[in-house]
Amino acid sequence: MNQQNLKLCSEIIDDKYVKIASNSLNAKEKLFKLLLSQRQLPEEGFDDLTIEYLLNIFAIMDTNNFVNKVGVGERESRIFSALVQKRNYYMGHGIGRSGDLIASQPKAAGSSLIAKLTKHLAKDALKLSNYQINELLIVPVATGMALSLCLLTLKSLKPQAKYVLWPRIDQKTCLKCIQTANLIPIVIETMIQDDVVTTNLDILIQKINEIGPDNIVCVLSTTSCFAPRIPDNIGEIAKICKQFQIYHVVNNAYGIQCNKIANSINQGLAQGTVNLIVSSSDKNFMVPVGGALIYGNDKKLIKQISELYPGRASAAPILDLFITFLSMGRSGYLQLQKDRVENYIYFKEKLQIITQKISEQILNTPKNSISIGISLKNLKIDQNNQEEKNQITKLGAILYSKKVMGSRVITNKKNKIVCGIEFKNYGSHCDNYFTPYITVACAIGLTKQEIDTFAQEFEKAYTQNT
Amino acid sequence: MNQQNLKLCSEIIDDKYVKIASNSLNAKEKLFKLLLSQRQLPEEGFDDLTIEYLLNIFAIMDTNNFVNKVGVGERESRIFSALVQKRNYYMGHGIGRSGDLIASQPKAAGSSLIAKLTKHLAKDALKLSNYQINELLIVPVATGMALSLCLLTLKSLKPQAKYVLWPRIDQKTCLKCIQTANLIPIVIETMIQDDVVTTNLDILIQKINEIGPDNIVCVLSTTSCFAPRIPDNIGEIAKICKQFQIYHVVNNAYGIQCNKIANSINQGLAQGTVNLIVSSSDKNFMVPVGGALIYGNDKKLIKQISELYPGRASAAPILDLFITFLSMGRSGYLQLQKDRVENYIYFKEKLQIITQKISEQILNTPKNSISIGISLKNLKIDQNNQEEKNQITKLGAILYSKKVMGSRVITNKKNKIVCGIEFKNYGSHCDNYFTPYITVACAIGLTKQEIDTFAQEFEKAYTQNT
Amino acid sequence: MNQQNLKLCSEIIDDKYVKIASNSLNAKEKLFKLLLSQRQLPEEGFDDLTIEYLLNIFAIMDTNNFVNKVGVGERESRIFSALVQKRNYYMGHGIGRSGDLIASQPKAAGSSLIAKLTKHLAKDALKLSNYQINELLIVPVATGMALSLCLLTLKSLKPQAKYVLWPRIDQKTCLKCIQTANLIPIVIETMIQDDVVTTNLDILIQKINEIGPDNIVCVLSTTSCFAPRIPDNIGEIAKICKQFQIYHVVNNAYGIQCNKIANSINQGLAQGTVNLIVSSSDKNFMVPVGGALIYGNDKKLIKQISELYPGRASAAPILDLFITFLSMGRSGYLQLQKDRVENYIYFKEKLQIITQKISEQILNTPKNSISIGISLKNLKIDQNNQEEKNQITKLGAILYSKKVMGSRVITNKKNKIVCGIEFKNYGSHCDNYFTPYITVACAIGLTKQEIDTFAQEFEKAYTQNT
Amino acid sequence: MNQQNLKLCSEIIDDKYVKIASNSLNAKEKLFKLLLSQRQLPEEGFDDLTIEYLLNIFAIMDTNNFVNKVGVGERESRIFSALVQKRNYYMGHGIGRSGDLIASQPKAAGSSLIAKLTKHLAKDALKLSNYQINELLIVPVATGMALSLCLLTLKSLKPQAKYVLWPRIDQKTCLKCIQTANLIPIVIETMIQDDVVTTNLDILIQKINEIGPDNIVCVLSTTSCFAPRIPDNIGEIAKICKQFQIYHVVNNAYGIQCNKIANSINQGLAQGTVNLIVSSSDKNFMVPVGGALIYGNDKKLIKQISELYPGRASAAPILDLFITFLSMGRSGYLQLQKDRVENYIYFKEKLQIITQKISEQILNTPKNSISIGISLKNLKIDQNNQEEKNQITKLGAILYSKKVMGSRVITNKKNKIVCGIEFKNYGSHCDNYFTPYITVACAIGLTKQEIDTFAQEFEKAYTQNT
Repeated sequence: MNQQNLKLCSEIIDDKYVKIASNSLNAKEKLFKLLLSQRQLPEEGFDDLTIEYLLNIFAIMDTNNFVNKVGVGERESRIFSALVQKRNYYMGHGIGRSGDLIASQPKAAGSSLIAKLTKHLAKDALKLSNYQINELLIVPVATGMALSLCLLTLKSLKPQAKYVLWPRIDQKTCLKCIQTANLIPIVIETMIQDDVVTTNLDILIQKINEIGPDNIVCVLSTTSCFAPRIPDNIGEIAKICKQFQIYHVVNNAYGIQCNKIANSINQGLAQGTVNLIVSSSDKNFMVPVGGALIYGNDKKLIKQISELYPGRASAAPILDLFITFLSMGRSGYLQLQKDRVENYIYFKEKLQIITQKISEQILNTPKNSISIGISLKNLKIDQNNQEEKNQITKLGAILYSKKVMGSRVITNKKNKIVCGIEFKNYGSHCDNYFTPYITVACAIGLTKQEIDTFAQEFEKAYTQNT
Repeated sequence: MNQQNLKLCSEIIDDKYVKIASNSLNAKEKLFKLLLSQRQLPEEGFDDLTIEYLLNIFAIMDTNNFVNKVGVGERESRIFSALVQKRNYYMGHGIGRSGDLIASQPKAAGSSLIAKLTKHLAKDALKLSNYQINELLIVPVATGMALSLCLLTLKSLKPQAKYVLWPRIDQKTCLKCIQTANLIPIVIETMIQDDVVTTNLDILIQKINEIGPDNIVCVLSTTSCFAPRIPDNIGEIAKICKQFQIYHVVNNAYGIQCNKIANSINQGLAQGTVNLIVSSSDKNFMVPVGGALIYGNDKKLIKQISELYPGRASAAPILDLFITFLSMGRSGYLQLQKDRVENYIYFKEKLQIITQKISEQILNTPKNSISIGISLKNLKIDQNNQEEKNQITKLGAILYSKKVMGSRVITNKKNKIVCGIEFKNYGSHCDNYFTPYITVACAIGLTKQEIDTFAQEFEKAYTQNT
Repeated sequence: MNQQNLKLCSEIIDDKYVKIASNSLNAKEKLFKLLLSQRQLPEEGFDDLTIEYLLNIFAIMDTNNFVNKVGVGERESRIFSALVQKRNYYMGHGIGRSGDLIASQPKAAGSSLIAKLTKHLAKDALKLSNYQINELLIVPVATGMALSLCLLTLKSLKPQAKYVLWPRIDQKTCLKCIQTANLIPIVIETMIQDDVVTTNLDILIQKINEIGPDNIVCVLSTTSCFAPRIPDNIGEIAKICKQFQIYHVVNNAYGIQCNKIANSINQGLAQGTVNLIVSSSDKNFMVPVGGALIYGNDKKLIKQISELYPGRASAAPILDLFITFLSMGRSGYLQLQKDRVENYIYFKEKLQIITQKISEQILNTPKNSISIGISLKNLKIDQNNQEEKNQITKLGAILYSKKVMGSRVITNKKNKIVCGIEFKNYGSHCDNYFTPYITVACAIGLTKQEIDTFAQEFEKAYTQNT
Repeated sequence: MNQQNLKLCSEIIDDKYVKIASNSLNAKEKLFKLLLSQRQLPEEGFDDLTIEYLLNIFAIMDTNNFVNKVGVGERESRIFSALVQKRNYYMGHGIGRSGDLIASQPKAAGSSLIAKLTKHLAKDALKLSNYQINELLIVPVATGMALSLCLLTLKSLKPQAKYVLWPRIDQKTCLKCIQTANLIPIVIETMIQDDVVTTNLDILIQKINEIGPDNIVCVLSTTSCFAPRIPDNIGEIAKICKQFQIYHVVNNAYGIQCNKIANSINQGLAQGTVNLIVSSSDKNFMVPVGGALIYGNDKKLIKQISELYPGRASAAPILDLFITFLSMGRSGYLQLQKDRVENYIYFKEKLQIITQKISEQILNTPKNSISIGISLKNLKIDQNNQEEKNQITKLGAILYSKKVMGSRVITNKKNKIVCGIEFKNYGSHCDNYFTPYITVACAIGLTKQEIDTFAQEFEKAYTQNT
């Protein structure tokens, strides 16, 4: 509300009240000024009213909300349903243009501003999480497809190459994104060190030599993973990639929440080759599934990905992220990360007590600070006795029935063909782990109450089961 | 978004786009300028985005939304539930102060502006409906309680008086509002002229003389009513009130939608005494139940009602009205009224055809242009035969089961005690109407499709029933 | 979604997933079963999805949402604006009927259920706050008007009486609600005991004798008040009322949050006469202004108030309350009360430290456990020196400019006519208090952070000012 | 609300009212039954309440909304912001699994049902628009990326091929989607026949022979385009593709709204090879940008695309579409299409009158029934006179300043490099069109009022400009 209109307000109610009220409106302008000039997470999160107010302003800046507009194009962002209008905050033009995923749209200044600002906010969030990167792109596709976009771009830069070297990690998407890009994965088998399943760098080097660096599009390494698998040694892989002049893409799906991974990636960036890092927006920032961050220090390369994307895209994942960053603020974001670290310690302590009681053990994987594995060595798995074998799968079923979601029971006995490749004991990240186990993750947003309930239900399920 | 911030936007996206976008923001400011300066219904209704934008601005003007506010009073409009916050558009201070229902609140400039503006918009709506009045108060209570507030105020101005003269109309609230004010109703029986049930002015005068004008708080007349009752003759009653110097309150519950009633009230205002007119906000403006308008030409008296109201009150009915007025605009409002008049004619034509088929008739009550009565004289009502008597009540039940709401079947045979007074044939507005009948109303918002379906269902129900 | 439809779902997605999902739907039904059968605050608050789901069900139960409905009445709850529809959760029929404010509506089963359930939930909340009452009515008007409704009802039961005895409390609404009911207030001056301003029971008795019990409608006592005024001694007043057979209404505006007041009222109920107690919904339950609770043990009397109310009323205050009760749950509600008690102690400790520094003192009013007074005796008030006199009012102005809302500075020098009665030193609840002071309240929902900021700003403002 | 709970309701309000209300709840179940069993657009659109009710049910079926759930996975759909929760209707798991974009999710039965149902509804919509196809996939990426997914899939089936034959159409995305898939576009120049710019089938055949069918991934033809370009002759191209055994992808971005295009595609499907057709969800169904439909008759191939997509994806575009389909219903959808056809005729008539006045002409392109071209031959374009040349671009600028969006002025003089290929007179779809012109589109949702305003503004801008 401009000065003139505020003056008109003073003719309706007491001028004194209008003055104080206009201070509050000015305070919002100051918040927006900070946001637009610093382009960082606000120190304290915005309240919902402020966020909605800002979204309204941006919506009014999009042409589809112009009063008396005449739309004679083929795409004018007419929205049929009032519910759809409302839930999209009256914006409909999506993001991007045919030339570039992050290009501003002439018809949608507001939506474009949201896209640009969200990028800056995401960069700031990464900075707060200690990532030493200077370029970032938010794509409105989830991690898997984002990785494919990276691979497609790298392929276009190295047309003759067709192989992607991939240290084994038994999550289907990690492998599939290679296939989507019409490239050929070369599995680098892991190795077991004590409890830990980890990257076998020797085999990696060996394979590079075998295939020849010129035929290799990139190494696709992974950081966030289920114990006892630990994050790939990004520092060392980066050095190897540098040495052989191979591109290096890091699948850091849910690693932003973890400082150790940031350090590992920074080391890679500093001492070797790390071209592109990809993270999920939902797994790291508590938004619905649908977006991913592609980041690194190679501005030109990231620009190329952005320019590779053909046409417009959904603004929904960016909008969710924008609202969430404003709502969290810097303090909220750091608090969530701090809570996660504390919860991780708390979770381990809780499990320590239980594992002692039931003569099992927490797998010793200190380099994985998100996921925890617990051995299930006392549960019977007689291959010839289907019933008994079920002691372990039954544990999973019981937990599921108690509304425990996301724990994974690994019996170490499944061979499986994924994307045309046969894996021994698929799910365990290696051919032969020494014990069945169950994994749990301490992800951002997990509550102490959930940890307590899990501990209780796990103990009960284990005990009743034996 | 102020100029400085728009300039910052130009550093993020193309300046050209920001310029066009800022035109759109300015266009909103111009709409608001018109609203704040003219204080009339906008020519065209605002879209939902514009309304929400304006509501957000007003919300920010309320102290409970100030950032870093310290609230050490006993009422700081802290709202527990996010759903409640959202549905109240983050406003919570209600309206009014202890001194006056329409006083501005120091803690709630935005809410106060809404209250004041809604009053102006309602006055404009009345003007568009041809009401020649110059003062209006919106109260966050429905018609009945609003009438009680009027009566309590008049009583305070004439403390020795205790009677209210009330031309009979068989709607309970009309009578009860008198009782609520601790006053004594004197029923003025109606008279039947051909099909019409109407005011008996002779008895009215006779009763005034009997009781003595000094003992009479006011006459409470009624305009909007079910056929065959027709609106009280406001012009003549106003003259009588003027002659005897008695206050006159008009219960015009749902009459704003009808031009004939406006003319009748204007005549009363011009030629006699009409002190206060009361109308429902929901029945005339398509909002949820909860508010009423008190209006007339006696500014001082209406101010007294406003000052009589003790303390704060819910802003909800005013907010609903504010949004609705902005959404309708002048053109939407006039269209709705035009549609209603057309529908009334259409409804009558439809019923004409059916009544001829079934040898019944539309009761001839041209002065009632909202409600229509249809005789049910061929349906049997033998008092000794309960089963047959049910031919009429069965008609009602069948219609109800067909989701026909709001039609009323009057069998003319019920005596009833209401507020301590016994009425003969309660429901028919008179002691003895010559035929049973069914009434339907052609209210604002009714659709042609509903009329068609009613006609169809009525004919079917009637025919199957005989 | 019924069994048949869930079965159809199983033909679309994996039956196993549908089974778990239907457990979740069943879990909601179980929550609703508890709500409908026990009619108490749920142990844990419902999440927003569950609340919206329940509101949707209730909305579908209202006739205005029936598919293919034909509405030929004058009030069919057609709602023009989609925003208004949404914010009212598609309900529009309000509450009550002409006969009774709490009567169920044939056209609005869902709305009626909400009204009835909210009453039960409010009763349960009062029980949790230790109120020993067995009947309650929620009225969609704020405290002042609710008190007027009580007085109008009592007046109707004792038509010859016209006085209300009212121990002085300098809040305008408390007095004005008497006037609204066309009754005459008799002010019972308070007395000062050390720091405390309290009820003068001797004068009360004396006035009863003077006026004669038969001429007195009731005593209107007050519990929640600003220090150094302490709550009226409800126990003793109740005994006096019993002795003289006078009705007794307690204005307990924001006292539900305070256990001491509950005890005092319970004592009154047990040992004497307490007919009606009135509390604000917004001040006690963190909803927007607009509703009040009328409660006590005289079921018949409360029914009479409900039946006195003429016609329908806004459902908005009830809906806000319903959502809030469901959202809080029993645990949330008790936690808020516990927090308030802790905050009160914390607030006092903070102020203790500051008052010592500045050589002022906290007024010793232990019986008031919501409001705290701080002397301002060292600030100059020379009546002939306007500038210096402003030391105190300036303090208020400074605090206000720092967004401190709700603190009240009392200079003890204002005479004022309220409702036709002249009060000496209006605002201080007595003719002559020994020191100017400032009051703050520790109300439900206040945060420690607000207390800290207040302490800081107060000290700064005081120090800079002297 | 189940029977047991309805019975409990009967203990709270009149059983009679509960009975009617439960009919309304049952009516919703019946609507849902039809939806779940027939999986077609409902005959009449659902109202917003019904849609929200259904969405809430589905949300409750997702595990993230389970009460007392314990989430120890890395992705548990915890949503930080209440605004984000609300706008996603409390759902967050997105769609798809690593194995398949349309696979049901164990953690999200409700979201999965929405995804599956939306697919069926989209198929039904296509059927209503006369498309004779039997398989469909909705992808949460816009048309360009959807085309890339198709090309990537086809490439994986024909790994040795690397060319895409592409009849020239000057929209960047159409070309770029080929590049994204790391394929090489071969431009098939158009030819001019009278006013029309159309496919040059001879050159197409010639190029196939030149390059060799085995080296060609597919022909990528286009239907919806700006006049004077007309849709590619799908029937003939399909025959050619069949003859040479080449895949054929049709870019039918906004052609679903047009019957002629449907017929052309059906012909292609019947008589030749049409493997995949891609359409925008926003341009055809009035939702925000973000989704596309891939459809055809080759179930296996479409399944392969679905399986190619790596990992999860945003559910937002699907949710928008689901809500919109339910809200439109069959009658609404057909009405929109009917309106568009009428508007097209109306638009042409309006322009006929104006073009005669200004001695210009409507380009005669009857096969393009969406876009209309108007010659601007009288406006001066002297290449050496920048100022005069601007007569045409000025026209565009004037229209833009009058809030006319989406009209395109083509001056026929721009050479441009797009995706590494140089095009003569880019924008005009051919090397040398005989006149400059302006195009407008008559897209779904355009209103007569917009047409009128355009006509007025165009005439004014043209006249003032000459």
